[in-house]
This record gives sequence, structure tokens and C-alpha cells, in this order.
Amino acid sequence: MQATLTDLQSEVTRLRHELQSLALEHKGDEQITVADYLLTRLEQLGVSSIFGVPGDFNMPFLDYVEDHPTIKWIGNCNELNAAYAADGYARVKPHSIGVVVTTFGVGELSAINGIAGAFSEMVPVLHIAGVPSTTQLKTRPLLHHTLGDARFDVFTKAAEQVTISQAMLANKVQATAEIDRILTDCVSRARPVYLSLPTDMVSEKVSSKRLKIPLSRILPPNNPDVEEFVLDEIIKVVHEAESNVVVLVDACVSRHDVKDEVKDLLTATHFPVYSTPMGKTTIDEEYDRYGGIYIGSISDPVIKERVESANLILSIGALKSDFNTGMFTYRIPTTHTIELHADHVLVRHAHFPKIGMKQLLPKLTSRLRDFRCQASELVVSKPKLEVPVEQTNDITQSYFWPRVGKFFRKKDVIVTETGTSNFGILDVPLPEQTIFVSQILYGSIGWAVGSTLGAALAARDRGLGRVILFIGDGSMQLTVQELSTMTRHGLTPIIFLINNSGYNIERNLHGMNRKYNDIVDWKWTSLLTTLGDLNGTLSMSYTVRNKSELEKLLDDPQFANAGKIQLVEVIMDKYDTPRALKMAAELSTKYAEKSAKQF
Amino acid sequence: MQATLTDLQSEVTRLRHELQSLALEHKGDEQITVADYLLTRLEQLGVSSIFGVPGDFNMPFLDYVEDHPTIKWIGNCNELNAAYAADGYARVKPHSIGVVVTTFGVGELSAINGIAGAFSEMVPVLHIAGVPSTTQLKTRPLLHHTLGDARFDVFTKAAEQVTISQAMLANKVQATAEIDRILTDCVSRARPVYLSLPTDMVSEKVSSKRLKIPLSRILPPNNPDVEEFVLDEIIKVVHEAESNVVVLVDACVSRHDVKDEVKDLLTATHFPVYSTPMGKTTIDEEYDRYGGIYIGSISDPVIKERVESANLILSIGALKSDFNTGMFTYRIPTTHTIELHADHVLVRHAHFPKIGMKQLLPKLTSRLRDFRCQASELVVSKPKLEVPVEQTNDITQSYFWPRVGKFFRKKDVIVTETGTSNFGILDVPLPEQTIFVSQILYGSIGWAVGSTLGAALAARDRGLGRVILFIGDGSMQLTVQELSTMTRHGLTPIIFLINNSGYNIERNLHGMNRKYNDIVDWKWTSLLTTLGDLNGTLSMSYTVRNKSELEKLLDDPQFANAGKIQLVEVIMDKYDTPRALKMAAELSTKYAEKSAKQF
Repeated sequence: MQATLTDLQSEVTRLRHELQSLALEHKGDEQITVADYLLTRLEQLGVSSIFGVPGDFNMPFLDYVEDHPTIKWIGNCNELNAAYAADGYARVKPHSIGVVVTTFGVGELSAINGIAGAFSEMVPVLHIAGVPSTTQLKTRPLLHHTLGDARFDVFTKAAEQVTISQAMLANKVQATAEIDRILTDCVSRARPVYLSLPTDMVSEKVSSKRLKIPLSRILPPNNPDVEEFVLDEIIKVVHEAESNVVVLVDACVSRHDVKDEVKDLLTATHFPVYSTPMGKTTIDEEYDRYGGIYIGSISDPVIKERVESANLILSIGALKSDFNTGMFTYRIPTTHTIELHADHVLVRHAHFPKIGMKQLLPKLTSRLRDFRCQASELVVSKPKLEVPVEQTNDITQSYFWPRVGKFFRKKDVIVTETGTSNFGILDVPLPEQTIFVSQILYGSIGWAVGSTLGAALAARDRGLGRVILFIGDGSMQLTVQELSTMTRHGLTPIIFLINNSGYNIERNLHGMNRKYNDIVDWKWTSLLTTLGDLNGTLSMSYTVRNKSELEKLLDDPQFANAGKIQLVEVIMDKYDTPRALKMAAELSTKYAEKSAKQF
Repeated sequence: MQATLTDLQSEVTRLRHELQSLALEHKGDEQITVADYLLTRLEQLGVSSIFGVPGDFNMPFLDYVEDHPTIKWIGNCNELNAAYAADGYARVKPHSIGVVVTTFGVGELSAINGIAGAFSEMVPVLHIAGVPSTTQLKTRPLLHHTLGDARFDVFTKAAEQVTISQAMLANKVQATAEIDRILTDCVSRARPVYLSLPTDMVSEKVSSKRLKIPLSRILPPNNPDVEEFVLDEIIKVVHEAESNVVVLVDACVSRHDVKDEVKDLLTATHFPVYSTPMGKTTIDEEYDRYGGIYIGSISDPVIKERVESANLILSIGALKSDFNTGMFTYRIPTTHTIELHADHVLVRHAHFPKIGMKQLLPKLTSRLRDFRCQASELVVSKPKLEVPVEQTNDITQSYFWPRVGKFFRKKDVIVTETGTSNFGILDVPLPEQTIFVSQILYGSIGWAVGSTLGAALAARDRGLGRVILFIGDGSMQLTVQELSTMTRHGLTPIIFLINNSGYNIERNLHGMNRKYNDIVDWKWTSLLTTLGDLNGTLSMSYTVRNKSELEKLLDDPQFANAGKIQLVEVIMDKYDTPRALKMAAELSTKYAEKSAKQF
């Protein structure tokens, strides 16, 4: 059902654009190249950096990128990293998109896992594949970068699996409309889209007149009668709950652009608010009605109690994946739950398709104001940042995370890699206006390095604070070369490299002492100089082996404000695991056993 | 048509196996795990190394790999590199296959470009994806590594684009037959295949009895009447050519296992033989009737004249891709051509489908013996290895390739990366029994690093000589971390890293002075120590800035026989390009213009 709705909505958008274009027909018209048309659209969307790797099928387009006055070509070390970077960029730059350019076949397939991650996690990314000329696409000669069997469409078929819209610019007549169609899909549905750009189409001349009509996130309108009914239902349930309501904020609040609407609702109602791991920092963690991270059985016991004892949970933008829900251990009956989603609402057992939260929320807020007085009485225990006092001078997981928590500042962007870091950070409340970036659902190891590159470029655009990455040694090995691109562009992230001799998350899930979970140790503190800081002036690297060394570094204002890229190798025990990860791994095993029996 | 034939052949093979199994039914039967069954099959195929990255969905299988007495888990830094390594391994180990193990979604998509390369270049690779349990595949919970939309089959759909057979081990009843089916396809059709292995199937018990029937490359039999007719036709044409026949050997000779048959034909007939770039070293380059590389207009003029003036070209295993044919510049009329392929024969304009060269060649050889006397009179100019005397002490492309040519020894394995190296090596005749490894059709940059890892493991198994890699700085950046895996396993390749400040092949194709073709310079000689040789005892690194330094190094017996991994940074000019690449780039532009006009 929903597919049809979004399809129709796309068509409505397209037709509106067509009509607006026709209306402009006689008002003057400039002929510009397809490349310039596309780049102007991207500029309108706030894109300032484009990621990718050159190849003979995309270089004609790269000429235009390189010559563009406001858009910068980043030039990654490889395509997967470029896709991760585009993902990270989009996550830190709301209302903009990430863009990655690859070459036919070899390049685009190398990037596909990064695109799939953006699909899974609902991040708007445009993947532009430079492809052979329109003539060659028809005659299909035995070109390099092909499978040698004249199937030129295989790469698009693969892309169809992991993007929501695709366009092939096969002729200039449809080119501008096609570009607009997929870009509108990208921004309004927050998922990756794919553009095949033949070499000879790049410089074809097209009318610029559509550019006068800005692209917009047009959402399907809610049916007013149904919407009114839903509002009544919600109010009824809130009444029955005697205002003992807790709001639970999840990933789709930021992904589907209702952060402001949710903030208004919270301010108006004073309902206590909790977040899931994927929703972390969507609500400012210093906000006085914010109570911490709820993650089912893995939650801090106080938080678990507060959330699960509420008479009603108003869940906004839920994405109930395994690691985001403590392996599906929510103990909240459906009769105590209202769920608001981008395209539907659930009130207890009742489903209301096609009622989207973006339009519903402001109306809900004005109807819920009356509950403020009662809701204000609900107690919220603010999560505390306490560094435990331990006997050992070793850097333990239980010590490390709260300690770095004290190092964070307002407006920092904090990126954590799948694994130890994603779980370690959960118990750390973050300062106001910090942005937390992670890939908890898709969980592709190595993602955080590319993502940090993109996040750092976006943070620079937005004037945010420091970009701080937490990553394990195992994960760093997958995508390490992108450190080089950070240095190249003068970016200054702080990278905490947890050296704990291999894949700690994997050990906890299976094969604790297996050799396949070991990795080769690297000279981590030589990485930045080896990979581009040849004179050693652009970077700093450190190894901290115990608490004293870590404390000293974190307290050093030069370190905190270095203005250069820094890597801190943190030596930790191979088997030491953050509390939340240990519990998640145990629940994961139990879950697998249980689901095997149920069947 | 051919698809149906190979499908039928697969079915015949399967049914024969079934029958043989039934026959064995009462002769005793041992119950073993699916994992052990699979590993035994791989062991039978000569597999001694398995590549990949651990993940929670493949670790139950990795337990069996780690415990296997003869198969070694390599443990790569990332999945794309692992797939490239499996490809390189299979290329250097005839009759065996490359195996790569990844985890569901994130891992398998990261590897897919490496698998596509193996498809394109006809390399037998088995891709095993560890996937959720059979229960979870049915209930499809919101697991990590998924796209979050319950489409658990998207990754298989992507794999279907780039593999010839796929199997999902959904139950133990079919497990062994399914494993045998895809492995038979893999070895008999020389293309990658894909296996989905659910976590709970790994330890399921199955009968071991099929293991007694070895897997074999069963080929479709030629129709004897048609085959006889074809032989008569060929003999007739050879007669008309007055024995002025030249044999042209291409990629599919080694890929489709007719190296010995071709050698017999050459020995019996004394026909002069030339090779394409993709066929290089298929025929021993010191063989006295071998005349060098034919690559259309790019060929050495003497070779071009000899080949194109022959009355008949007997082309064996042709793969006429753009870069393999000098951008489609063969000047050989169809009336002067016979082409033998794995599954068909072309005699001038006549097509003979379903006549395969494997069975045809021995018969052809015995019919062609009579021409030996006349053929022996045809002159073959042996390609010479002459190092030019130049004014400059700079290391030029024209000097470098013949000079390293003098460094090569019998049984060396020489891997060249797409770009400068693939073209530079073409003019260098190689010593007897050397093996040349390159990816000229698919041309995915970065491939050679992973491939060298696999090639070095295979070379060690086979007792071959040194493994020598030539790669540019731009390409190295894509996959650099796999150097670490080489050191980890005590492999000792010699790596010539051409530092020429960026993507030289791309500059020649487009954007000679564009910034997008520049890269960041790295401290290349620190790579091996940074990435794993922490004490500096396992590796050596050098920079050579001029001819004197290069000569000195190449003449140093310690260097030539170091027994440790070595990296030589060779400083070369940014714009200096091998002759063959310069010509190929020019022809490429002309070809693009011509094909645009033709349409």
C-alpha cells in the first residue's frame, strides 16, 4: 500500500514540477550543461563536498566538479570509503545529502555496501555512476570494467536492491526531470538514490528553467478526517494514562526531520523523554526532562524502571532493530504504547496507515499542552557522568567511557564504530548540542573511518565543534587509508583507537579465544605520518597505556584544542568489554536459541 | 542456446552424482557435519587457504576452518581485499579454486566487486556468505546487517548478477548435493559461485558418502559428426593458407584448461605462436617458436607485420576486449581466421556452436602434424630484451620495464596492476615458467594487492619462485592494508611501487593536469613497518630515485633473494607513460569518437 502512495506522491511532485516549468517557459531560458544542472541542484541542497574516485567513465563529469566555485571534490582513497564518507556527511548536515561519484562497474560495485548502509539507516545519499556513452550502452562493445558478456545493466540491477530510485540519463530531453525526480525522492524519503551518467550526456545542453523551482521534501498529506480521529484517540489514551506518559525518541526523528516538532512537543508538555541508542543526541542530553538511553533489558536499571512503569509510552520514530532494543527485550505492552512514524501511526493495537508524524506532531502538541501541569510532576533522574574509582591503573572499559565523557564539549560531533565503541558510549551522557553518529542497525565494520571524514567536512561547514572518533583496531584496518584524505583536506578529528588485539565484539558473540578474532598489531602511532603527514607537522599521535597517561592527555589543553588531526592509541585488555556489549552478546545468544526453538 | 546446454550439462553431472551416491548407499556411510563436508570438498580441490573476515553469521563455520588440519584461515583486513586474494590464488593454482568467506549483508556486499572481477576474467572462486539461521531467514526479524525492511534476499539477488550458480543451504537433505552442484559449476565453467550458509546448518550432520566421488570438470561432449566436419574444414583452410599459419593464444587457454593441448599442437606443428596481453606466459616466452605479444595497432611493428601478414590466424581462447586488442584494432580479415573457444568454433564466417576446444584440440593436433615441415620454415623473430641507453639518469618508463625484465627469473610470478604496469610489462619477454597475473578486462584498481597475497600463497603451495608486484601509488592506496596480511603469513613478495604522483593511466585517458588525478604522497617506505612489521625484521623498504640506485638494488643478490617482504619505491615522472599505454589511450579517444559518429 505504502509503496503505491509514495509512488503516487513522486508522480504528483513530478507533475507539479512539469507544470511549473511550463509556466516559466516564456520567461527566458538559459541553456546549460547537464553537469551544471546537476551541480546547481546539489548546491541548492547545500552540498559542498563530493566524494569518490576518478575513472575514465566519470572524469568528464569530474571536470565540472573540479571547476565548480562552491563544491569541492574530495578524492577518496577507495570507493567504499567514499560511500561511507557521503553517509557521514549527510548525517551531520540536515536537509542536505551525501554525494558519491564512482566509475562504471568496478567503482560502483566497490561502493555498494556503503550505499546499502545508507539505505538501511535511512540516510539520503546520491550515488552517481559515470557510465559509457549512450552509443556504447546500445552497441555494448567488450569494454574494460564490464563482465565481458555484454550485460551492461548488471550494475544498475545490483543498485536497484539498495536504492529507492534510479535514473539513467539516456537522453537530454528527460535529463533534468529525471535528476529532479531522484533528488526529490532522496530528500523526501531519506534513502539513497542512483544516477547513471553516460560520458556523452555530461556536456549536453539543457534548459536551466526548472532550477528556479526549488526541490522540496513534499510529504503525502494526511487525510484530515483520519488525522482528527487519531488525535482524539491519542488524547483519550493519554487521559487514561493519567498523564503518566514517557516519550521515547528513536532514529527516525532525525532521519525524517521532526526534531523541531518533537522539541516543541516536549517543551509544551514536559513529558519525560528517553532515547534509544539510535536516537541518542536527537534530544539534547542536558535537557532537564531527558532521562537517558532506554535499551530494554540492557538499560540502566533506573531508566528501565522509569520507562517500563509508565502508563503510556509515546514512541516517536521507532526503529526496533536487535541492537537498538537490547535484542528485542522491551517490556512494554502494546496497550501502553503509541507509535508515531513517518508514514503511519499505531495507537495501542490500532493501525492508522498514511498518517505521517511530520504533520501530526504540531497538532498533537497543541492538544497535549493541557497535560503539562501533571506531567511536570513526573520525576526524571538525570543520567550522571561518574568516573569509577578502580584499583587498577589499567584503562578499563568501565573507566574509559565516563572519563572521555568528561572530555566532550558542547557542539562536538562524536562518531563511534560498530563494536565496543557503539556500546561503550551508551552510558555516557553527552553535552548539549553534541551530535552522535553511529551505524547501529547496519553495523558494517570500518564504516566509522569514512563516516568521520564526511562528518568532519559537514561539521566544518556548520561551524560545529571537534569531531571525535572511537574505533577499535580491528575495524580501523578495514578502511584505514581514509585517514590520509582527512589530512589532505586539513581536517582535525581526534581519533581514539582502542588497541585491544582484535575483534572484541566478535569474541563476545562467538569464539572468545579463536585465532580468527585476532588481528596483526600495527604501529598505530605511525599511521598519520605514513599516510600523508610526511613532515609530521599536520598531525599528532599518542599511545596511552594506563589511566595516568590518559588523564594527563585529556587534561592537556593543547591536546583538546590541537587544530590538527590526532590519533590516540588506547591500550586496553583483549577481553575487557563494555557492560552493554556484554549484556547484548548474552541476550543475542539467548535470542538465537529461543528463536530456533519457537519454530 | 549455450545457457541451456550448460544447464543440461549441470543436470547430467548432478544426476550422475546422485546415481553414484545411490550405488554407494549400502557400502557404509559416515555422518559428518555440513562444514566438514564442504571443507573436505575444498581440500579435494587443492584448496589450502581460505580468505575472508569474521562476522557473527560466519564464525560457527570459521571454527571448522580454524580446526581443519590442512586448510588455513588467512584473515584479511577487509572483504574486498579478501575477494581479490581468492581471485589471485585461483589464477596461480590451476585446477583449484579461490575461496572467500564473508558475513551476511555488510561483508558480502563489500566483497562483491572482487567477485564480479572473477566473473569477468573467468576465475573460479567460491563465495561463502555466512547468513542468519534457517529460522531467522523465515521469520526475518529486524537484525543488524540487514536493510531494515525484512528483505533478506537482496544480497543473494545482488550475487546472482555476478556469479554463475548460487545455493542456499536451507536444509540438510539437499546440502551435499547443492554444495557439489555449485562446486562443479565453479570448476567446469571457470566462474564464481555463491553459497549462503545459515549459522545452524554448519553443524548439521549429513552423509559423507558422496565425498567418495570426486568432483570433476565434466565438459559437454562434442557431437562427433559435427566435430569431424569442423576438423575437415580447418584442415582445408590450413591447406589453402599454404601452411602460412600463425597461432594466437589468448586468455581462455589457461582459463579453460587447454594449456597442455595447445602446447602439444605447437610442438607437433611448429606453427609460430603469438600471445595477446591476457594470454601472456600461457606459452612459455622462451619457447623458440614464440614471437611476442600481438595487440593490434599497439603491437611492436615487427610482430604486427608477422601476425597480420599470415595467411591464417588460428586463434585459441580469444577474449577480444578493448585493452586486450589495442582498442579493437586487429587488422585480420575474418576469412583469415579460425577461432577455437571453450564452447564453439568459428571457421572464417562459419559458426559451429557446441564444439569445444578441449576435446577438439588433440584431434586437430594429430591432423595438423603433416604441416610441420612447411611451418618450420616460417621465421619467428624472438622479442629481445634490450635496455635502452638514455641520456638521463631519471628512471623512465622506457628504461624501467626492460631493466626489471633482466631481474626476472625462471618460475617467478609477476603481478601487474591495472594502469601503467599492465602496459609497461607488455614489451618485456619473461623467462621460462614465469606466470604473469593481471586483470586486463575488468581492470579494477587496487586489485593487484589482494591478488598478490593470494598469488603468493598459491606460489608457496606450488614451490614456484618469487612473487613480484608492480603497482602505482594511486592504486596502492585503495587496498594497502593487505600488505599487513602478507607480512602476517610470512610471505615474501617484492613490491615495486611506482611513485608517479597520481593516476597516470587516467591522466592519459582524460584530464592530464586535473587535480582529481593527483593523490596524497605517502611515506611509502614506512608502510611495511607501520602495517605489521613492528620490529623491522620481517621486511625491507627502499626508495630508488635514479637509474644508478635502481641498478645497484637490482644487482644486489641480497635483494634478489631476501626471503622477506620488500617494497621498492620507484620515483618516476608524473607524465611519463609506457609506449603501449600512450597508444592505447590515443586509440581509446579515437574509438570513442568513431563509435559516437557511427550511431
